[in-house]
Amino acid sequence: MTSAVRHSHRRHVMFSERIDRLQPSPIREILSVIDRPGMVSFAGGLPASETLPDWSGTASADVLQYGPSEGEPALRQVVSERLRSLGVDAPPERVMILGGSQQGIDLVAKLFIDRGTPVAVESPTYLAALQVFRLYGARFVDLDVLGENLARLAYVIPTFANPTGACASDAERDELARRCLSAGTVLFEDDPYRDLAYDDCDRRPVASRMSGGSWVYQGSFSKTFAPGLRLGYLAASAELFPRLVMLKQALDLHTSRLSQSIVLEAVTDPGWDARVEGLVRFYSSRRDAFESAMRRHLGDLAEWHTPRGGLFYWLRLNEHIDTRPLLAEAIRRNVAFMPGEEFFPNEPVLGTMRLNFSHASGDDADRGLATLAGLLRDRTR
Amino acid sequence: MTSAVRHSHRRHVMFSERIDRLQPSPIREILSVIDRPGMVSFAGGLPASETLPDWSGTASADVLQYGPSEGEPALRQVVSERLRSLGVDAPPERVMILGGSQQGIDLVAKLFIDRGTPVAVESPTYLAALQVFRLYGARFVDLDVLGENLARLAYVIPTFANPTGACASDAERDELARRCLSAGTVLFEDDPYRDLAYDDCDRRPVASRMSGGSWVYQGSFSKTFAPGLRLGYLAASAELFPRLVMLKQALDLHTSRLSQSIVLEAVTDPGWDARVEGLVRFYSSRRDAFESAMRRHLGDLAEWHTPRGGLFYWLRLNEHIDTRPLLAEAIRRNVAFMPGEEFFPNEPVLGTMRLNFSHASGDDADRGLATLAGLLRDRTR
Repeated sequence: MTSAVRHSHRRHVMFSERIDRLQPSPIREILSVIDRPGMVSFAGGLPASETLPDWSGTASADVLQYGPSEGEPALRQVVSERLRSLGVDAPPERVMILGGSQQGIDLVAKLFIDRGTPVAVESPTYLAALQVFRLYGARFVDLDVLGENLARLAYVIPTFANPTGACASDAERDELARRCLSAGTVLFEDDPYRDLAYDDCDRRPVASRMSGGSWVYQGSFSKTFAPGLRLGYLAASAELFPRLVMLKQALDLHTSRLSQSIVLEAVTDPGWDARVEGLVRFYSSRRDAFESAMRRHLGDLAEWHTPRGGLFYWLRLNEHIDTRPLLAEAIRRNVAFMPGEEFFPNEPVLGTMRLNFSHASGDDADRGLATLAGLLRDRTR
Repeated sequence: MTSAVRHSHRRHVMFSERIDRLQPSPIREILSVIDRPGMVSFAGGLPASETLPDWSGTASADVLQYGPSEGEPALRQVVSERLRSLGVDAPPERVMILGGSQQGIDLVAKLFIDRGTPVAVESPTYLAALQVFRLYGARFVDLDVLGENLARLAYVIPTFANPTGACASDAERDELARRCLSAGTVLFEDDPYRDLAYDDCDRRPVASRMSGGSWVYQGSFSKTFAPGLRLGYLAASAELFPRLVMLKQALDLHTSRLSQSIVLEAVTDPGWDARVEGLVRFYSSRRDAFESAMRRHLGDLAEWHTPRGGLFYWLRLNEHIDTRPLLAEAIRRNVAFMPGEEFFPNEPVLGTMRLNFSHASGDDADRGLATLAGLLRDRTR
């Protein structure tokens, strides 16, 4: 390691200017003791426990009362163990439970992005992250020229990326961490798909390679359990975490305790590993069927890499037509897809499409792909 | 109505500069049809329904899948009916379900506040709203001089305010609406306590008096049902609502469908009205006992108005000491309260305290108030 790289680890983290106005309440720390036995609290605006509804669910009736902004201790512990097993330096006290990982994107954007702040992203990348970063004023710079652009934040989905399905190699992960450390860039690793791995590939988080640097790592229970409960989590390096908690508190006080309790029960159930294995088998065979149908219908119209995990195929059409106008036409024929153009931070590459293979059944997928192929032939004839 | 007032109704609403970068996705509208029967969707990243966990709850298994950003149609309908019965122009298509009403404060702040934006607030007012407005850069102006300051946004809790417990009169509500309309100020009415009314008072929302103007009205199920599920709602005038939905989608996609389903079941249950009446009786008698204990222990140390609803007493001490240092001392003696100084947007008035009377039992409250009185006597002796 060069001396330049070592020194950069201690570079001061740049926050958004709004964070100067984020004052830790002197009261917050003191009030953290109000659960102490014997304490009479006139402090909060808590309903009397007697007035809460009768609760027949399996979860404790505690889920009905206000809870901690960081999340339920038992769930933070479970997430911490999981992240540590992946090499991420995430003790329970630096794990926060989110109302879905989209919320983590808002919190991190709020922490770092002002108008004009350079943010490095893959191109293409998750469109709803681009929307949030744009809202806060981000200027997008290319992840590949990270060192030169001194991005404040680098947002990446290294494992089964949305939309491309790509999985970064071990060397690419090392290189990304090295660049972030060297430039003093905060790594923001979004990792919702990691458990949906159908073939072998390197998956060790980039965040596990960021020792001495600043990072946020986030994951989700939407893909392995259920999206409707809106539950995700993040972990972050020590200089970032307390500010993220203050932002979470200002955002919604805390995440639904009932959702947390249900997910805790599910992930600590002895059947959890078998559930995830079953999920992987199911999606893996769905991917294989999709691959065959794609070859059959689109083999002469587009190119793609077979994704080794995740939920998406990324198509590059032989004809570089804008696929956005095609969508309305496809929908009239009862097929929906995502035009690839929406996933580019700056100038879009035309002739790209994201196809989800997890939701439609085999027959539906075959029919939908045949329809898409027909439309493409009409358009490019 | 004067001509000046009428014209002002058509004044252009000023949004925060970030809203210029909030692009409605052309795809969003088209994708709203993907639930159509027969549609094959490759568009989203939805789990296959077959892979969702077995669901033994009373709610439909739909709650496990992704849902609409605006919230569940049935719950929006119920909220709409309730708001319309209060005179608020809130059809179901302009009602949004929130992950608690704190989230509404973030969304509205995001929609309107840049660095230096003048925001009118009561003084004192809800401290976590002040924190969010401050974070986005608000400059606080006095609600009483609203017309002169041309505030972009006016945040008010007219019914059983936090922290003062005050309830605005009918004339005051009219006057506030008139001023907002006249100045082109957006009214943001926060109304979480309205059902907790122990004595008669005017409660008709200010938002119901804003015909032709811009307004956001929000409420919560935290006080009448349970805070731990994090569920609130907002309604807004037509030119604001679509932008709030885009911001909600960027924030967390949508609110927990399970929380929505549980609250829908509760509020449509035939026993709901009886539940709220029971709650009001319970808190009303708790307030009365608190009042007696206050007179006993603090009658010669402070002044207050008896709140006609809500959850709080607001104390003005005879001696104008800073109550913040007192908190640590009180906590050492097992009593917590909120120093009033935290609730002021600008310079705090010293010698104020907010006491919650809903949570502690009668005996605990008596003991806690006696302890507080002892401390105050020590400090002011």
